[in-house]
Amino acid sequence: MSQQDRQLKQVLMLENLLHANELIAKRINERLSRSKTLLINMISSPGSGKTTLLEATAKALGEEMHIGVIVGDVATQRDYERLKTCDIPAVQIVTGSECHLEAAMVEQALNQLPVDELDAVFIENVGNLICPAEFNLGEHFRVTLLSVPEGEDKVLKYPHAFRTSDALIVTKVDLLKHLNFDVGLVKDYAKSLNPNIHIIAVSAFTGEGMSEWLEMIRMWRKEAFR
Amino acid sequence: MSQQDRQLKQVLMLENLLHANELIAKRINERLSRSKTLLINMISSPGSGKTTLLEATAKALGEEMHIGVIVGDVATQRDYERLKTCDIPAVQIVTGSECHLEAAMVEQALNQLPVDELDAVFIENVGNLICPAEFNLGEHFRVTLLSVPEGEDKVLKYPHAFRTSDALIVTKVDLLKHLNFDVGLVKDYAKSLNPNIHIIAVSAFTGEGMSEWLEMIRMWRKEAFR
Repeated sequence: MSQQDRQLKQVLMLENLLHANELIAKRINERLSRSKTLLINMISSPGSGKTTLLEATAKALGEEMHIGVIVGDVATQRDYERLKTCDIPAVQIVTGSECHLEAAMVEQALNQLPVDELDAVFIENVGNLICPAEFNLGEHFRVTLLSVPEGEDKVLKYPHAFRTSDALIVTKVDLLKHLNFDVGLVKDYAKSLNPNIHIIAVSAFTGEGMSEWLEMIRMWRKEAFR
Repeated sequence: MSQQDRQLKQVLMLENLLHANELIAKRINERLSRSKTLLINMISSPGSGKTTLLEATAKALGEEMHIGVIVGDVATQRDYERLKTCDIPAVQIVTGSECHLEAAMVEQALNQLPVDELDAVFIENVGNLICPAEFNLGEHFRVTLLSVPEGEDKVLKYPHAFRTSDALIVTKVDLLKHLNFDVGLVKDYAKSLNPNIHIIAVSAFTGEGMSEWLEMIRMWRKEAFR
């Protein structure tokens, strides 16, 4: 097979895969909309603080909302074990070599959660700023995290995740005093790609920005199920 | 097509692709071994400091070695522009939606570099700790970076890159005083996956560990072309 044929076949394969994924994503979205369970897909690089933000979110929401979590990882159950200690229902997906979650994996995981009793389910996607952005998981809203140590330019260097997200959470802002990082510049970059994106600067460590993040979750619940 | 058929076809496609990649990688390695040009493939998450380490390396090596750089990015030429100011030959590969570099892209980029005059070429792979680890680029040595803010557990959560690397560079160690990060634990994790991996803790900002990194590059040149 020539290289061109191989590339053409790959493209067709991918289109097929994405089409099948869209069908399952639609089914997930309809199912969760029926039970009024908000589904949020969280994307970021490895180590940007998805698990830490989820731990702080579970703690802060307490009895106000019943939440569940689906955790995607290439290997290990470490994040799952961290989240289980928050006393919320959690399901781990170990993808093996897959660099992203797909809707079929999420649908299976949802079967292991008491969805009808939950107000919101957070999906912690595999740590990767590129591939997960291609796959609709049936989410009502998508969030991409960028941590301060990664640098402002990552918004422009990995545009697809930010372009397709409803919110950008700038994490680890307690490190701003030690690093050269301009939150205003990140906002400009993100708005240039996606004028409607919400941007919140958060430190799960000091609690800065957490109330704004929680308020957005409440607003999204109203918006999704009005 | 059933989901199982689709998955089987995907696996076959990927095997085909990896086989073609291996053939090109072998050709690259033979070509660079003839000209005694060391090829180093650098893998990491977005924002782990690949470009900053390369800037510091180019500056520190000065006239001692003639180096060139191939920079892979999904979008933008920002890293390329930073490296061009170091006065070294550089080629940018913009991959579009591809989340990793493949040997065919590197072979084309090498044609734009004065390879016969270079002692070493560094490949800055796309910022992604998962997919690039699958693709041999014909390198003599592979390096994976992990920055202190990412956390120690990333070694176990993204094992393939660390398992296939000759060295792990722990970057941004100047931030150790602000963060809870245990370099010893990272060493234990990395050695448990790959007992022969070299581990160097570096801050391109303060210069810590740079001499050890440069010494390793010198040693690798001797090892590759003896």
